[in-house]
Amino acid sequence: MALKLYDLALADPDIRPSPFCWMVKFALLHKALEFEPILVGFADKTKYPDPEYGRIPVIVDGEEMVKDSAAIMAWLDKTYPENPLVATQGEAAAAEFYRSWLFSSFFPAVSPMLVSRIHALAAEDDKPYFRASREERFGKTLEELAALPGQKEKTEASLQILSAPLGRYRFLGGDAPNLCDYIVMGAFMWPRLSTAEDIYEAPQSVAAWFERMLDLFDGYARNAKRPS
Amino acid sequence: MALKLYDLALADPDIRPSPFCWMVKFALLHKALEFEPILVGFADKTKYPDPEYGRIPVIVDGEEMVKDSAAIMAWLDKTYPENPLVATQGEAAAAEFYRSWLFSSFFPAVSPMLVSRIHALAAEDDKPYFRASREERFGKTLEELAALPGQKEKTEASLQILSAPLGRYRFLGGDAPNLCDYIVMGAFMWPRLSTAEDIYEAPQSVAAWFERMLDLFDGYARNAKRPS
Repeated sequence: MALKLYDLALADPDIRPSPFCWMVKFALLHKALEFEPILVGFADKTKYPDPEYGRIPVIVDGEEMVKDSAAIMAWLDKTYPENPLVATQGEAAAAEFYRSWLFSSFFPAVSPMLVSRIHALAAEDDKPYFRASREERFGKTLEELAALPGQKEKTEASLQILSAPLGRYRFLGGDAPNLCDYIVMGAFMWPRLSTAEDIYEAPQSVAAWFERMLDLFDGYARNAKRPS
Repeated sequence: MALKLYDLALADPDIRPSPFCWMVKFALLHKALEFEPILVGFADKTKYPDPEYGRIPVIVDGEEMVKDSAAIMAWLDKTYPENPLVATQGEAAAAEFYRSWLFSSFFPAVSPMLVSRIHALAAEDDKPYFRASREERFGKTLEELAALPGQKEKTEASLQILSAPLGRYRFLGGDAPNLCDYIVMGAFMWPRLSTAEDIYEAPQSVAAWFERMLDLFDGYARNAKRPS
């Protein structure tokens, strides 16, 4: 029985932009573990494996339910030790740093450009919940967020820091991708799958790495449906 | 013949705050390589091993001269492979990310609080050069830099990102320190040795790691002279 991954879908069920679900999808692909996606929307938490928790990703593997992308990835490495996501504790510590950088720098810069786009693409039943929850989280209306000036420039400035490792190494993991690549690439799948436009320009070495990441696992991420 | 490390000294030759020299000192200690410090000031570049380059750290090892902290640390690992500074390429890539974070976040936040303090502690002969070069670099007078509001808060905000790895691991290298620890700790020695005051407060896990780093190598960094 394949492991189940609860993933978030927009009105078109093939469009699944959740960054945290993508981090887990990359980890599952890296470990060559088969998984069955179970699609949920934003609003109807009764469809979630733990309605009170009310968030995704969640994986259900036989009797086990594991929540939160970081906990899931650690659990995967412990439960399925083949094809480890990190080779050393230093790499695992670095993964925490990359994740923390996403929260302090990349997400605050890019999110205002995405939320109204995601709202437009969400299922009709999800729209009121999505609007209310995001407007509360950001303290602004979706329209105010979309009109914030300078977010493209902030996003591009935020990405500069990745030029240092990616100017010298093919992957954040060095020669081959590791957990750090999957965490950062998971986050980058969010803008890719929330809009048909390329809403920012990454530094050259980061853009080249992004293409390599899209190619992994027979182009799994490249083939993921984007809005048209 | 011991390897020579050109290091920067203030008016008191025992006070040597250069962050990039500290990164190299930690690397040399990690590799248990003896080194002889050769002290230079800010202004008199004729005392530098390469006056035209005019910067430190530089190491001279027999016939070889190696410049720039990042190049020196890579050269040390290649030339003296025992006690490697990184265990994997993923750790080496992470070191680039930590270094880039210092330049984009920590140094811009902390530097305005330090430069006038360092000026006050520099040798008299160094003061005019130090003032002129730093005022040109920052586009502000030392007094304007010292009066900039909010730098303590910016520094403390910048350090939050380190809580993620250091809340879970003893060192950025995991169980034991690696290149990433030495790069970040080298930077943190700069405020420690430029003023008798503790000018910012680090998150608890970062402060605890800082104490562990001071204790390494028989308290080498803890015993380094601070201004009184």
